[in-house]
Amino acid sequence: MAKVAVILSGCGYLDGAEIHESVLTLLALDRAGISYQCLAPNIPQMHVVDHTKGQPVSGETRNVLTEAARIARGEIKELSSVSAADFAGVILPGGFGAAKNYCDYATQGDTCQMNSLVQEFLVEMVEAKKPVGVICISPVILARALKGHDIHPKLTIGTDAGTAKSIENFGSKHVNCPTNDCVVDEAHRIVSTPAYMTGQNIAEVAAGIERLVAEFGRFLSA
Amino acid sequence: MAKVAVILSGCGYLDGAEIHESVLTLLALDRAGISYQCLAPNIPQMHVVDHTKGQPVSGETRNVLTEAARIARGEIKELSSVSAADFAGVILPGGFGAAKNYCDYATQGDTCQMNSLVQEFLVEMVEAKKPVGVICISPVILARALKGHDIHPKLTIGTDAGTAKSIENFGSKHVNCPTNDCVVDEAHRIVSTPAYMTGQNIAEVAAGIERLVAEFGRFLSA
Repeated sequence: MAKVAVILSGCGYLDGAEIHESVLTLLALDRAGISYQCLAPNIPQMHVVDHTKGQPVSGETRNVLTEAARIARGEIKELSSVSAADFAGVILPGGFGAAKNYCDYATQGDTCQMNSLVQEFLVEMVEAKKPVGVICISPVILARALKGHDIHPKLTIGTDAGTAKSIENFGSKHVNCPTNDCVVDEAHRIVSTPAYMTGQNIAEVAAGIERLVAEFGRFLSA
Repeated sequence: MAKVAVILSGCGYLDGAEIHESVLTLLALDRAGISYQCLAPNIPQMHVVDHTKGQPVSGETRNVLTEAARIARGEIKELSSVSAADFAGVILPGGFGAAKNYCDYATQGDTCQMNSLVQEFLVEMVEAKKPVGVICISPVILARALKGHDIHPKLTIGTDAGTAKSIENFGSKHVNCPTNDCVVDEAHRIVSTPAYMTGQNIAEVAAGIERLVAEFGRFLSA
């Protein structure tokens, strides 16, 4: 069977991919016997954030692909080098990198522009009815990617009213959900879980991601 | 109960802490109900390695504490700001950072010198018979820390003969062990597991770390 794509937006929750969510996704996939390939766009990060201070570092630049390779232990491909057609499904862990590097939602909100490579990959997967898993803030990115398409999935980012409103503004539907659970859109084969949007500890985030991967795996084998 | 210390050597297996091992350690601790505090020395990394190429980047420097904060989601303390006496036990995930930033074993082998803060923390924990967990390459670092002390624990780094020989040269004993298991030294309350020294996938590494944390937790509550 074709591999599943895991797209990473860097390495670190304030400027890249949320590390726990990324690793927990890879763990759940491997335990389910689902082969994966990590991917990342070869673009500069919007920010480099000092994670001890929570503040951007001025004058430093890092590359999304190069940093994401840390999580992938070097086993990563440039998003531009692959085709969505080659993958059986896709999962996006969260982290501010999804809202800073895939698009500028972090600073522009509902008027954000999106990286065309990431957008096209996601739209092609959804249109092909291949399973899609979106974690933490990534459901907003998926909703933005689908804006203007006649596809209106049910998604969750947990309970944050402002972010939920963005999902609705982009044309998707929002459903509240606790950290240890996930929301399943059966028709579109899309699964989402709030993870650290609401999570207070790694064990409950892991529980939600395990549920997401279980539903994702069910779609994959259906 | 006092928290357990998890000491991180950066963020990325080629120049810092192995990210999967670090996250899997935090997950297993949280699932066991064991509170943890991430710590790191506030020192420059020996290298910054481009994880897409596996090669050091010339002219770039990063700080161990600042990068480790990515894995800890900002919840990290400088090693020099705490005392070993304040912790109930300590776990060291692996990654080349342990052999590059805690000491220069990666380049100097058996003649390596060690960061005194890390060494003193480890020796104090072992002498106090508090549980110590060492993962991947970290058992070599523990053996080096204990060199010259009359403490000779049983440790594993998996099956690599050269690294096992270093452990013996430092005065500890080496025992071969598969990835999904761990070696327990009951007398010294030290547990070790090979993780990515031998591991081929994240699920088997997780199995070994779960076993390590289970034994560690047994010592903690004994």
